[in-house]
Amino acid sequence: MEKIRIVVDAMGGDFAPLNDVSGAIIAAEEKPDSLEIILSGKEKLIKEEILKHKVSLKNLTIVNAEEIVTMHDSPTESLKSKADSSISVGINLVKEKKADAFISAGNTGAVMTAAVLKLGRIAGVGRPTIGSLFPTDKGKTMVFDVGASVDCKAVHLLEFAVMGSIYMRNVHDIQNPRVGLLSVGEEKTKGDTLTIEANELLEKSNLNFIGNVEGRDVLSGKADIVICDGFVGNVILKFVESVLDVLKNKFRSYAAEGFLKKLWVGLISGTLKKVVLKDFDYQEYGGVPLLGVNGVVIIGHGKSSPIAIKNMIYKAEEIIRKNINAKISEELSSFEKK
Amino acid sequence: MEKIRIVVDAMGGDFAPLNDVSGAIIAAEEKPDSLEIILSGKEKLIKEEILKHKVSLKNLTIVNAEEIVTMHDSPTESLKSKADSSISVGINLVKEKKADAFISAGNTGAVMTAAVLKLGRIAGVGRPTIGSLFPTDKGKTMVFDVGASVDCKAVHLLEFAVMGSIYMRNVHDIQNPRVGLLSVGEEKTKGDTLTIEANELLEKSNLNFIGNVEGRDVLSGKADIVICDGFVGNVILKFVESVLDVLKNKFRSYAAEGFLKKLWVGLISGTLKKVVLKDFDYQEYGGVPLLGVNGVVIIGHGKSSPIAIKNMIYKAEEIIRKNINAKISEELSSFEKK
Repeated sequence: MEKIRIVVDAMGGDFAPLNDVSGAIIAAEEKPDSLEIILSGKEKLIKEEILKHKVSLKNLTIVNAEEIVTMHDSPTESLKSKADSSISVGINLVKEKKADAFISAGNTGAVMTAAVLKLGRIAGVGRPTIGSLFPTDKGKTMVFDVGASVDCKAVHLLEFAVMGSIYMRNVHDIQNPRVGLLSVGEEKTKGDTLTIEANELLEKSNLNFIGNVEGRDVLSGKADIVICDGFVGNVILKFVESVLDVLKNKFRSYAAEGFLKKLWVGLISGTLKKVVLKDFDYQEYGGVPLLGVNGVVIIGHGKSSPIAIKNMIYKAEEIIRKNINAKISEELSSFEKK
Repeated sequence: MEKIRIVVDAMGGDFAPLNDVSGAIIAAEEKPDSLEIILSGKEKLIKEEILKHKVSLKNLTIVNAEEIVTMHDSPTESLKSKADSSISVGINLVKEKKADAFISAGNTGAVMTAAVLKLGRIAGVGRPTIGSLFPTDKGKTMVFDVGASVDCKAVHLLEFAVMGSIYMRNVHDIQNPRVGLLSVGEEKTKGDTLTIEANELLEKSNLNFIGNVEGRDVLSGKADIVICDGFVGNVILKFVESVLDVLKNKFRSYAAEGFLKKLWVGLISGTLKKVVLKDFDYQEYGGVPLLGVNGVVIIGHGKSSPIAIKNMIYKAEEIIRKNINAKISEELSSFEKK
């Protein structure tokens, strides 16, 4: 088996370099024969971190990058002003074919911008897309796009549906993924100009298009893939994350009302976590793919744990071994000919 | 005090005419001197329903309408094909100045379409808007628009902000409501073309504009009013309603796993309802206003209880007594002159 070379942004996320390095070490240890891990970032800091683990791994190397893009840096500006950042250096390795994939728990916008500008788009792709998994009663639904592309045209939504279908089929083993178009009503005449046009394109496609779905269907499991403009998807993604915070806050305030209430909340909190919160814990999924760029890029949550980082590395490996990008290119160029 | 005449759609909602008539009777009984209630719908059915209550109310009358717009009827088609519906007849009364307001728990799209087409818009309003209240840690946030207008231009979002501010100030007693523009990032350069343009207009306005807010801020209480295109607002509104269903389902499935779990869920469900579910119960708010049309129209949830219907009637009265529409007209025409 040919080794896959994956760059891990060692300076990305709220717990850098700790969690990034730990995750990379776990992956390098677990898969010595199939993975080459390259940590990008401040060599000195990374070495110190590795030393704590007391391991010697041949398939774990470092490429130095002196600058760090913070969560507050502007994506486009950081690309220019911080050319020697762990993100830029890491993505350059992919661009120069010295690595196969880049994963980061850092500034999402910065990773996305660097990836799109440096790697370029796959032939046939007008706009790249980021998908995010939402838990449903029956399993999972993936929403495309959640923030890579706004001001989309109908054809871009069609592209998201094509890329999303390929991803769900190959990575999530759903053979004929049901594609729903997010709108304000089920009838195909309901929606804004964008969705009414996209509905027509999707109906003509060879995808398993089930028609329009509504906001309530995202979590119902009615569709395996929900397609929308990145503006809408991003708003929903951030909204659902906040719902959990609201629930937690409500229980916390209730507990603060007195000793008995505190005791009671303590007693039931295990059940709450088990029943409600677990599925909505985005950590578990370990990163989302940026599809449509010439290269494999996985973006993780800023609070990614070492296990989440490891999962991102494995996801990148899977996407590469399954030739997802070649499949996207093939499918979209056949689309163009129609 | 001059009497306010309010038409209640007796055939609207899932529990028509039962809940509509009951709600109307409560309002008519509670405010004999300030309200005239007119029930629109099938006279025979309404009379039967009133008889059950064994009341005789001078301020409660019926106007007959033979047709019923169902939840599945197309808004535009029903307007033509069911000219004698409780919705059309009721809104015509407002148009002909025989009534001051119309309230309905029926087909939202049909009520909205009939209202906009029959009553027309207030001078200075390009697009009408429906606002919906979301619970927050600190109180309530109202989102405009949640489905009245899609494909908005930036100036329409500004109008929503003006109408929303007037509404929140007068009906919810928030003197200087903070207006947030829903986008995908806090910086004013973040967003799609629509929001970037709207941000500029809002900054120049005399509103208490706090800048862009994100999906996570809808429930955080950061803004009193959150402004967005009706497509986005509608998706969020339906999404949040479904989150509750998902939570309820999860507890139900957990309870179904065995007797002890069932007992446990039974024990904690009171706390869950009290702590979490109550605030998200849209019933309690009793209807949302359609702002920007020449007349007062309140739209309620299909599952509205008699109390929710009563609350809708009182809300309509309040909007009329506080001259909200005159204030909107005044404010927006002064805007146009700038």
